[in-house]
Amino acid sequence: MRVRVGVIGTGMIGQDHIRRITQVLSGGTVVAVTDLDAARAGRVAAGLPAATAYPAGRDLIADGGVDAVLVASWGAAHEEHVLAAISAGKPVFCEKPLAPTGEACLRIVEAEMAAGRRLVQVGFMRRYDAGYHALKSALEAGEIGTPLLMHCAHRNPSAPPYGFTTEMMVTDSAVHEIDLVRWLFGEDIVATNVLKPRRSSKGSVELHDPLIVLLETASGVLVDVEVFVNATYGYDIRGEIVGERGTVALAEAGGAVLKQEGRRSGRVPADWRERFSRAYDAELQDWLKAVAAGSCSGPSAWDGYAAAAAAESCLEALRTGRRTAVSLPERPAFYATEQ
Amino acid sequence: MRVRVGVIGTGMIGQDHIRRITQVLSGGTVVAVTDLDAARAGRVAAGLPAATAYPAGRDLIADGGVDAVLVASWGAAHEEHVLAAISAGKPVFCEKPLAPTGEACLRIVEAEMAAGRRLVQVGFMRRYDAGYHALKSALEAGEIGTPLLMHCAHRNPSAPPYGFTTEMMVTDSAVHEIDLVRWLFGEDIVATNVLKPRRSSKGSVELHDPLIVLLETASGVLVDVEVFVNATYGYDIRGEIVGERGTVALAEAGGAVLKQEGRRSGRVPADWRERFSRAYDAELQDWLKAVAAGSCSGPSAWDGYAAAAAAESCLEALRTGRRTAVSLPERPAFYATEQ
Amino acid sequence: MRVRVGVIGTGMIGQDHIRRITQVLSGGTVVAVTDLDAARAGRVAAGLPAATAYPAGRDLIADGGVDAVLVASWGAAHEEHVLAAISAGKPVFCEKPLAPTGEACLRIVEAEMAAGRRLVQVGFMRRYDAGYHALKSALEAGEIGTPLLMHCAHRNPSAPPYGFTTEMMVTDSAVHEIDLVRWLFGEDIVATNVLKPRRSSKGSVELHDPLIVLLETASGVLVDVEVFVNATYGYDIRGEIVGERGTVALAEAGGAVLKQEGRRSGRVPADWRERFSRAYDAELQDWLKAVAAGSCSGPSAWDGYAAAAAAESCLEALRTGRRTAVSLPERPAFYATEQ
Amino acid sequence: MRVRVGVIGTGMIGQDHIRRITQVLSGGTVVAVTDLDAARAGRVAAGLPAATAYPAGRDLIADGGVDAVLVASWGAAHEEHVLAAISAGKPVFCEKPLAPTGEACLRIVEAEMAAGRRLVQVGFMRRYDAGYHALKSALEAGEIGTPLLMHCAHRNPSAPPYGFTTEMMVTDSAVHEIDLVRWLFGEDIVATNVLKPRRSSKGSVELHDPLIVLLETASGVLVDVEVFVNATYGYDIRGEIVGERGTVALAEAGGAVLKQEGRRSGRVPADWRERFSRAYDAELQDWLKAVAAGSCSGPSAWDGYAAAAAAESCLEALRTGRRTAVSLPERPAFYATEQ
Repeated sequence: MRVRVGVIGTGMIGQDHIRRITQVLSGGTVVAVTDLDAARAGRVAAGLPAATAYPAGRDLIADGGVDAVLVASWGAAHEEHVLAAISAGKPVFCEKPLAPTGEACLRIVEAEMAAGRRLVQVGFMRRYDAGYHALKSALEAGEIGTPLLMHCAHRNPSAPPYGFTTEMMVTDSAVHEIDLVRWLFGEDIVATNVLKPRRSSKGSVELHDPLIVLLETASGVLVDVEVFVNATYGYDIRGEIVGERGTVALAEAGGAVLKQEGRRSGRVPADWRERFSRAYDAELQDWLKAVAAGSCSGPSAWDGYAAAAAAESCLEALRTGRRTAVSLPERPAFYATEQ
Repeated sequence: MRVRVGVIGTGMIGQDHIRRITQVLSGGTVVAVTDLDAARAGRVAAGLPAATAYPAGRDLIADGGVDAVLVASWGAAHEEHVLAAISAGKPVFCEKPLAPTGEACLRIVEAEMAAGRRLVQVGFMRRYDAGYHALKSALEAGEIGTPLLMHCAHRNPSAPPYGFTTEMMVTDSAVHEIDLVRWLFGEDIVATNVLKPRRSSKGSVELHDPLIVLLETASGVLVDVEVFVNATYGYDIRGEIVGERGTVALAEAGGAVLKQEGRRSGRVPADWRERFSRAYDAELQDWLKAVAAGSCSGPSAWDGYAAAAAAESCLEALRTGRRTAVSLPERPAFYATEQ
Repeated sequence: MRVRVGVIGTGMIGQDHIRRITQVLSGGTVVAVTDLDAARAGRVAAGLPAATAYPAGRDLIADGGVDAVLVASWGAAHEEHVLAAISAGKPVFCEKPLAPTGEACLRIVEAEMAAGRRLVQVGFMRRYDAGYHALKSALEAGEIGTPLLMHCAHRNPSAPPYGFTTEMMVTDSAVHEIDLVRWLFGEDIVATNVLKPRRSSKGSVELHDPLIVLLETASGVLVDVEVFVNATYGYDIRGEIVGERGTVALAEAGGAVLKQEGRRSGRVPADWRERFSRAYDAELQDWLKAVAAGSCSGPSAWDGYAAAAAAESCLEALRTGRRTAVSLPERPAFYATEQ
Repeated sequence: MRVRVGVIGTGMIGQDHIRRITQVLSGGTVVAVTDLDAARAGRVAAGLPAATAYPAGRDLIADGGVDAVLVASWGAAHEEHVLAAISAGKPVFCEKPLAPTGEACLRIVEAEMAAGRRLVQVGFMRRYDAGYHALKSALEAGEIGTPLLMHCAHRNPSAPPYGFTTEMMVTDSAVHEIDLVRWLFGEDIVATNVLKPRRSSKGSVELHDPLIVLLETASGVLVDVEVFVNATYGYDIRGEIVGERGTVALAEAGGAVLKQEGRRSGRVPADWRERFSRAYDAELQDWLKAVAAGSCSGPSAWDGYAAAAAAESCLEALRTGRRTAVSLPERPAFYATEQ
């Protein structure tokens, strides 16, 4: 069975997912698209073998020929589309963030619970990265003993030229580490803090770049995340977990080693596409397989909600300059087991 | 358009290619299989959504519903199946070696030329490896200047327990480096030699392991290849090109770095599946795309022939202990351009 | 001229310095020793070609045949011996800490200023390490632009079995990073904080291990130092400076790379002797040369005082759980230039 | 006791050894110098606390105040000076090569045997390098099993502008690997060969650069040495030993890792001084200690002779293009044990 996918949002990320389903992955076909920009949706549909362009998400979701929905619209519209898909009983893959606020995420969680089965996968693609998998494997195999600390760096070569704010360093960037920490250690984040180092002169006045984001898990693991969105030299994602008996860290990128003019050097990835290309592929392939099998896997709506709650705690810490507790209700039994 | 593939040979490698087309790649579907072991072919067909099991390769090739043929039978049968596919005017992907002897390869080359268009891709998957691509890019960008030398190591953890001979270290192992050297430097191998170091006590009496295989290109680039099939510690593929102004080498594998009990360590791949999994995917995806587009790309029948000729020269050198010229006719215009 | 050195304190570190002067370095000779344990001092003297064992530090300092004094007694006694050497107008090398409190260090500073010339070098040997030198060179050459952040890790395989307290993780361990930060960035530390991650089960009840020590410099550079004294796997010192245009980090140790049983691995130093052996050599050689030349170089009494003041701030932060300012008077002109 | 050293030859290398004894190492003092260029010898003596400049080596050797002789004259003069030192019963450190021909080396060996005790240490400083020590330790600890192969690269940034010939790539460059191979594997080289890859356009017409030098030990270990004297990018010394159960290789240089403009890079040493500075220190310190103790250690006259014999075999192979046996008499009992 090939999964017939309807894609809501045909901007850069939406088109990239369409390319994946059409040219890279197995088991899926894009049969419907929609976008606020109807002309763009029309052009995208025209480039596909057999896809309908719909005027709105609800029309696309209502199409009986659409088995599953991929939401790649802008963040503010996610809630509406995900709720509609749940309401239609259709599996839905939603790009991160699940919704812009914890409250909105919670409404999705409640709707999914009311629907009585898991339908939502959130696009935290790093859980599908081979490097992070190696970290989790080492941790679970007990190779470093009980984890105590984790050091992360999240460096982008440059932030978008306009409109990227200090708050977005949390909600758009650090949110990846927030989700990873929950996944790696299998426990929630209970408190956060944000430190402001010396400010880079690159970038805008609205941007205090870099930041140090601190995350504390329920068992006391302390995670420091350097978020640096104008690091200039490349896209560099680092992570080292320190345990009682050793440490495990992401290796540097492979490829080729060049010896030239007195230096031995290797490439730093240019951007997130280069660094996480395979993780995006694996994430969406996993979704297509789960949908075809009538199941649901990957990051859940609850994961999306918990990440939003921790991010809100970071924003509060950023405002107040103080360590801030994360407010999160108990995890419902509905989300108790990983699927 | 989805390419409807018929697979000849449903042993380990054939089944792995079927898995790729069915579960990993885009744009292909397996509609027919055949195998000397008809029961096995039947079982494989039964596990696919809609595939016919044929008694013989010729029946499969004759099926009008088969667009393209994948040959994964044993080496001795390749010639027959590839010639039949050419004769039927169907694109054919043939696992390496194209055929066991240079002569047999030449018959395929001649048949393809007579057919008047390129139909054959040979399974030299290393050309699709990201590491080797980085080497070729550095070379072509002039980063190391004119190439002078290359050092390679080709280490397997262990040879098959029975029947693996010293000659097979050339025809099954070093043949990959033979093809790579031709591809990386864009020129032919004109002479070879084989040196015998101290012999490992692992493995059988028929196996002088390791060997040093020497390859000389037309411009004088000298390549030394350590072939070591019972290296025990892992599957380790090394390559460094030395140019007038620098060197470029395959980086060590990435993944995770573990610090534990006084050591800092990383994983060595366990086998060729782990090391070249993505290259196999990319190779077959490239073939499916080319077939769908009515074109042909990747290693050609001529490449298969030239590799066989160089391997035969190595076998002669192994017998005589002397540097041996490679006998190869001029490259026909038909194969002049890379496609 | 060979510098005739008197050594106060013939415990482990004192004997190691004697070995250096006697068997490794050029230009020095040990002519006098003393120790609280007079028998030990006697044994050490007996093992030297021509050295007198004195009952007390003041006797040794008074010996006209002693050109310069090396203080390797326990911390509480440093002040007395350094003041006595200053008073005698003799150059003095003092192991870190210069004195246990900022106040005591300040008395030494004042005595040296009163003496009118620089006589004191403090044993912050990391300033002589080739790795840290490479970091400082890169920084000063502008290779990473303005520095914004630094990440450090200071890991010991195990703390002494008795008596090592959480406070000593600051005064004995992090004090090295405190001095380095001042030296690398050429500015003072103005505030500190200490964070408590999950506690390792190794070690004693008096030890909250590991800690994260935060240091802020005058220009806003934020330094995080993981101090982990029961890291078990080895002695591992890490440092990465993050600047506006790039980063520079200590490389991993060299030596040999072993490939074995599926792993590629290198050695982690076993202890500080292995890691900083050359830095100790270079530090003491520098001192001997400076003494012979009638000058004074290396970390000054002021550096010792400033480090003690920052360490006191960390201890306050450890008690209160709050960011704490460092109280430090303006740097006197006497110490204005590096010598 | 401080060893009073007389230095024959005050060119670059001689002056560097004088600097070492005077400013870096313990236990030695330079009391006499001589040089073909008497004025230069005079200037060097004038720069030392108490050294006599002699008109000729024999005068220096005859000086009763000279305990030991360091020969750093040009190669052709080594034999005379070493024989004179042996004849005077004085320990002598001789820079490599011991003498320009195997025959001349053999005369030294015979003279030393006639003198009845070991007096000669040859300047193969790589035996004192920490990296090579780590290789030998791993080998001797059985970590890689029985050795079968070794791959080496010996790359200089550039050859001297005049007079450096292809032959000197063997006698000046590869001779280091020749000695190392004997030391690492504890056995002699029994045959050699030289291969000529494509020639670099850098350098002179008399220079076929690079070369591959092949060395075979008595047990069959095959060593390939790339000698490349105009490698341009830096001074790069590589070595990997391949054993039955694993491999061990020199690690890349440490120092600092810079991330900048899309690259992660480290420094390649600029020249042999940077790469082997510590090995030179350790070598000469070892000699001074041995002399003071009345013993002799390090590479012996026999090692110098055996290296010369293997180098002569390489030169013959270079001329004939053929594998060439090494002609070496049995090792005398006098040199049977390492000292």
